[in-house]
Amino acid sequence: NTSKLPEVTNSIFSVMGQMAHAHNAINLSQGFPGFDTDPKLHALVTEAMASGHNQYAPMQGVYSLREQIALKLNTLYKSDYHPETEITVTVGATQAIYTAISAFVHVNDEVIVLKPAYDSYEPAILVNGGKVVPIQLKAPDYKVDWEIVKQAITPATKMLIINTPHNPTGTVLTKEDMLALQAILEGTNIILLSDEVYEHIVFDRIVHESVAKYPKLAERAFITASFGKTFHNTGWKMGYAAAPKHLMNEFQKVHQFAVFSVHHPTQKAFAHYLKTPNHYLELGAFYQRKRDLFLELIKESRFKMTPSSGTYFQLLDYSAITDEHDVAFAERLIKEKGIASIPTSVFNLDQEDFKMLRFCFAKTDETLEQAATILNAI
Amino acid sequence: NTSKLPEVTNSIFSVMGQMAHAHNAINLSQGFPGFDTDPKLHALVTEAMASGHNQYAPMQGVYSLREQIALKLNTLYKSDYHPETEITVTVGATQAIYTAISAFVHVNDEVIVLKPAYDSYEPAILVNGGKVVPIQLKAPDYKVDWEIVKQAITPATKMLIINTPHNPTGTVLTKEDMLALQAILEGTNIILLSDEVYEHIVFDRIVHESVAKYPKLAERAFITASFGKTFHNTGWKMGYAAAPKHLMNEFQKVHQFAVFSVHHPTQKAFAHYLKTPNHYLELGAFYQRKRDLFLELIKESRFKMTPSSGTYFQLLDYSAITDEHDVAFAERLIKEKGIASIPTSVFNLDQEDFKMLRFCFAKTDETLEQAATILNAI
Ligand SMILES: CSCCC(=O)C(=O)O
Ligand SMILES: CSCCC(=O)C(=O)O
Repeated sequence: NTSKLPEVTNSIFSVMGQMAHAHNAINLSQGFPGFDTDPKLHALVTEAMASGHNQYAPMQGVYSLREQIALKLNTLYKSDYHPETEITVTVGATQAIYTAISAFVHVNDEVIVLKPAYDSYEPAILVNGGKVVPIQLKAPDYKVDWEIVKQAITPATKMLIINTPHNPTGTVLTKEDMLALQAILEGTNIILLSDEVYEHIVFDRIVHESVAKYPKLAERAFITASFGKTFHNTGWKMGYAAAPKHLMNEFQKVHQFAVFSVHHPTQKAFAHYLKTPNHYLELGAFYQRKRDLFLELIKESRFKMTPSSGTYFQLLDYSAITDEHDVAFAERLIKEKGIASIPTSVFNLDQEDFKMLRFCFAKTDETLEQAATILNAI
Repeated sequence: NTSKLPEVTNSIFSVMGQMAHAHNAINLSQGFPGFDTDPKLHALVTEAMASGHNQYAPMQGVYSLREQIALKLNTLYKSDYHPETEITVTVGATQAIYTAISAFVHVNDEVIVLKPAYDSYEPAILVNGGKVVPIQLKAPDYKVDWEIVKQAITPATKMLIINTPHNPTGTVLTKEDMLALQAILEGTNIILLSDEVYEHIVFDRIVHESVAKYPKLAERAFITASFGKTFHNTGWKMGYAAAPKHLMNEFQKVHQFAVFSVHHPTQKAFAHYLKTPNHYLELGAFYQRKRDLFLELIKESRFKMTPSSGTYFQLLDYSAITDEHDVAFAERLIKEKGIASIPTSVFNLDQEDFKMLRFCFAKTDETLEQAATILNAI
């Protein structure tokens, strides 16, 4: 039996997390907060169970939750999503991404992926028989040259994937980027998959340019988003996809057989919680303070950094310290120094190694201080 | 953009459920209990949230839960599953089935499906570019002729799917069936996908023949199972897959990108709850009483039945009442009589119509009495 993913191994997030655990290292590898979600949300899940929401939720998601999601998108981004037909609640953004790709990518279809890229895009394309057309962005600023993207388009291009704010680099696409993207997609049938899981985590007065703001992009796009990143409960595995009806219809054909539906009491809890729409408004400031603290604490270290503009990740360039390969260096930091990060070559085409490690700063101040003490001594 | 599932519409379970809701009908259509899960399980989920299990669970599932699952399988079926490498916790059995198919079915691979069949198998095969090789079983007993199955095997056969106890017919495979299956698979590379979600719901002293009992089958098999069906919480969307390490390894390659992991507090709750292994032992007797009550209540009706041997479904033959197509009849029963069922032609090859409706008897006695009053008057 030949593997459909011969080159895939355990996700780097599992590998580094397990190694961190085994060596009792400070874990700044996989992206999850080191603090808890609002206890009010716990109480709402408990309430939903007690009031008997324990059988199948509707396949598309609980209607009142889809209403809140559409309302948020339409308020923040002046879009026009309809909760009946254009929102699906998913098992985190990961399932939304996998399902969108599965619903549209036929055998031999090409999908343009900007690298470095989150590690799930490529396997999802390959499982469905598609071809990855990678475009490598370069350190330190990872700017997209849209002319190069345009040249990569062929009659076989089915989909293009963007991710803003961007994991792992922390860069954010600008209005100019979006308009350039719009220009190159105009007149094509290409579906845009826009991974916006860090939409509320942007810094320094930068504004998140959601695809939802651009009707000419939105009409061909899936936006995927995550409650886990926004509400500090990555383990509840809840997110959503938004897309125009004709695209969402195809998505739901697959969704209903891929998972059928999502944890009912948790959906009820979010439906209620989102009625008070202040939570995510403070998130950018909250994480900007974390970023600033982390960078201040390590400013005398031998790591070089370009401050992250969004996400809760910070890349650190270690080329002044060693020329070890990033995977080797990341492993040595866990085993010898007691600190875990993510080597960025795993997000890169051909595992290209820019001597960069990714650190997650969604941690308590105390953890960030302990991490800094270690990093300053390297 | 051509659809990958041109013939697929909303799952029959959504359609009939919504129609039942719109017409305020007694809903015996989609398979979910009309009573609640054990409040102890609610409390355990609440406890797990309070003790901070709100970030990503391990990709394979919480280890203590995998231990309980392996222990259960190995105790009940004398198998030898290893929790480290041979169990994955999934978003219900549906995700386990979809992921197993996605991990193994390449373009043009053939998959043998015994019809009638649960409606997710076929779309999952088609999304992955595979070919469905259907074998139609016949009313009233739906016996498998293994010689016909054997003749359907070709060099392109990648997988064979069985489901016991069987949805929608309520039949149960026997030891003889399993040995015949073993004989025809011996010497091939065919993967067996065994959907055993109703494993604990068997009646009349019949014994569930899990693939786990047959080492020569288990060595090539995925067993998929559901907590929702067993613990009355279908809306918590939790189940698992069990398979030998070399197969599970490929499954997890896809699983980690399809969903990454599953609702963490709910996993913790089940891990604790399963330590008292009495729950599922009473389930067969519990549902046998429901079946017997339902059949007793409608014994004077014009429906004909062969008592269900397992699952919480009962087929009723209405050929003595009308020769309407089952979909039309099922819709009319909702709209005019106020009772919802599932037409079985949707599970059949070419929508073949055996004049059978499926009724779910996982309902309170009161609901079953109300349903019987309606059915007796038809
Ligand atoms: C599902 S694991 C991913 C968590 C995350 O987004 C990351 O660490 O990049
Ligand atoms: C995920 S919907 C299926 C419920 C069920 O198993 C059935 O009604 O057959």
